[in-house]
Amino acid sequence: MSTPKEIERSLWLAPDGRSVEIIDQTKLPHEVCIVRMGSVEDAARAIATMQVRGAPLIGITAAYGVALAMRHDVSNESLTAADALLRATRPTAANLGWALDQMRARLQPLAPPERVFAAYARAAELAEEDVATNRAIGEHGLSIMRPLLTTKKPGEPLQILTHCNAGRLATVDLGTATAPMYLAQQIGLPIHVWVSETRPRNQGAALTAWELGERGVPLTVVTDNAAGHLIQRGLVDLVIVGADRVTAGGDVANKIGTYLKALAANAHHVPFYVAFPGTTIDWTMRDGIAEIPIEQRNVREVTHVIGAVAHGQRAEVCVTPEHAAARNDAFDVTPARLVTGFITERGVCEASAAGLKQLFPKSVLTVC
Amino acid sequence: MSTPKEIERSLWLAPDGRSVEIIDQTKLPHEVCIVRMGSVEDAARAIATMQVRGAPLIGITAAYGVALAMRHDVSNESLTAADALLRATRPTAANLGWALDQMRARLQPLAPPERVFAAYARAAELAEEDVATNRAIGEHGLSIMRPLLTTKKPGEPLQILTHCNAGRLATVDLGTATAPMYLAQQIGLPIHVWVSETRPRNQGAALTAWELGERGVPLTVVTDNAAGHLIQRGLVDLVIVGADRVTAGGDVANKIGTYLKALAANAHHVPFYVAFPGTTIDWTMRDGIAEIPIEQRNVREVTHVIGAVAHGQRAEVCVTPEHAAARNDAFDVTPARLVTGFITERGVCEASAAGLKQLFPKSVLTVC
Repeated sequence: MSTPKEIERSLWLAPDGRSVEIIDQTKLPHEVCIVRMGSVEDAARAIATMQVRGAPLIGITAAYGVALAMRHDVSNESLTAADALLRATRPTAANLGWALDQMRARLQPLAPPERVFAAYARAAELAEEDVATNRAIGEHGLSIMRPLLTTKKPGEPLQILTHCNAGRLATVDLGTATAPMYLAQQIGLPIHVWVSETRPRNQGAALTAWELGERGVPLTVVTDNAAGHLIQRGLVDLVIVGADRVTAGGDVANKIGTYLKALAANAHHVPFYVAFPGTTIDWTMRDGIAEIPIEQRNVREVTHVIGAVAHGQRAEVCVTPEHAAARNDAFDVTPARLVTGFITERGVCEASAAGLKQLFPKSVLTVC
Repeated sequence: MSTPKEIERSLWLAPDGRSVEIIDQTKLPHEVCIVRMGSVEDAARAIATMQVRGAPLIGITAAYGVALAMRHDVSNESLTAADALLRATRPTAANLGWALDQMRARLQPLAPPERVFAAYARAAELAEEDVATNRAIGEHGLSIMRPLLTTKKPGEPLQILTHCNAGRLATVDLGTATAPMYLAQQIGLPIHVWVSETRPRNQGAALTAWELGERGVPLTVVTDNAAGHLIQRGLVDLVIVGADRVTAGGDVANKIGTYLKALAANAHHVPFYVAFPGTTIDWTMRDGIAEIPIEQRNVREVTHVIGAVAHGQRAEVCVTPEHAAARNDAFDVTPARLVTGFITERGVCEASAAGLKQLFPKSVLTVC
């Protein structure tokens, strides 16, 4: 375990050139704890215990998990076992299976002695692809910010509202919704971010506020309840959120509460953009409200809140009467008509079937 | 201090016939602690430390505070000092000043020896008036629920969403937004209440969930983020909230987050009602968004959450990075056009200047 002065990425090769290091995200924002993974078991544990989270980062962690397995044993049996172990950690994470498929496709045909180098190389490629995708999303997001900035008084920052954590902590670097913010910060465009706390798990208050703050992006944390008021009072110029799934028709499943922000933005003609890589599009679905299953999570997330007490010690407090009934829908669906546009690695498009087809022509299923 | 088996009201005369008892609301929902007030200082402390909160209950507590002062000293000096002490506890609470004016108007003209009995009598009158007002609000609210219930399948409850605590804990009994719910429960109309937790102070999760649960009203606590999703999925038949101030034009200032619920209800044609007594109407204001000042509260309410750890012990946890910037607007304004109607002690009316004038013809200022 080490604590570098500045953390560049959410996952990186350790100084020994073999182990892989991550930030233990379960300890954020109160403690920045770096975990070194030396084996496939370490990688599986990091995914299963949510020390790493966010679909892209889970995929890359699994890819490096395979590399760590190869370092110890390059046999076919070892490859198969590593794949199975990692695949079982978070069964519903689409990127996890995809990344493992990529690793297997590269390593299986090779003679075992060639697998160690190839595994690290392929995992690094996948990590770089993730960063490149996010950088492209960021560049396209800048093209939306620039004209909005011309409407501001000189020196006034562009006021951006975001929800949950579609940030660099969910990816190897830059994030999706946050990529335009980081790039704006790098080139000196004045921005300020309203960070919605994102109950029940508080990913906004805990993770987005931490990662933006670490890189010096000006931010203010607000309750989820505040979005309507801030938008009504003209304090928000632009909303950018991420997505967990986008249908071929342009409907967006994202963290619960996203829909309320879309309604408020729509009511006040504030641009509402969703940033995601093409891999987030589910071409098999069209009507998000009818078709996207909404995960019901443990109600303890609603009845309890985790945070730090004195000295950074973590504690969980109950905010309801004991044994109160609660319900915990993890996501909601924002219909395409409330979305101003999509920001993807291939450009910005209308939130519609036509818009998505234009950017991703080959991906569209021709048979329903 | 005593703990009655069933708590009928939020404030009541103690068995000694002189002291006044309240529930210490700062300890809810984890501990039901009854506080006995024996002096005007006790009453002032209860208001100042928010052991009692909610405009009507603050007013009645102050009225009994004057009675407690009279019990010890019936002089003019004592009356003046009690008035000044109580008035300074929560300077912005309109009902506080109003109740103290009522007490002074009744007691000042009396010979000092007559003041003790008169003070208790007037305070009791004000308390009964509060309950009667809320009962009338409840009856009128039932007239909205009944036709909605006919649209439900037999045995299916009417699904009501509320926000914050416009409940009996904010009044002597029944509450405003909750009055129709308690009356429905009493006469056996099937209802179920979605209780929105109401960050940052969690009055929904802590107080509304507690008080509805105490009287057996079926409820489920949800995060503030969930309202849009629940309404979109047809899981809400009716929204009822309270109000902190209603303008002569029908705009509604209420707890932050109310506006987002109104937007969602409007988008899905779900009736959105606001319940309040006529005293909540501010006839000097018309445009709520332009004119109602929005209180900025301590940002620690946003960065920290109070709840119970093991054994009911209270604790406060920090949910953001230490020293994160935050903003805490306590209220928002819902424009009249998003409100289906008002439920008052005089009946139900359209949320408009015309609607309010119809019910409260004499209260309208003729000069602007």
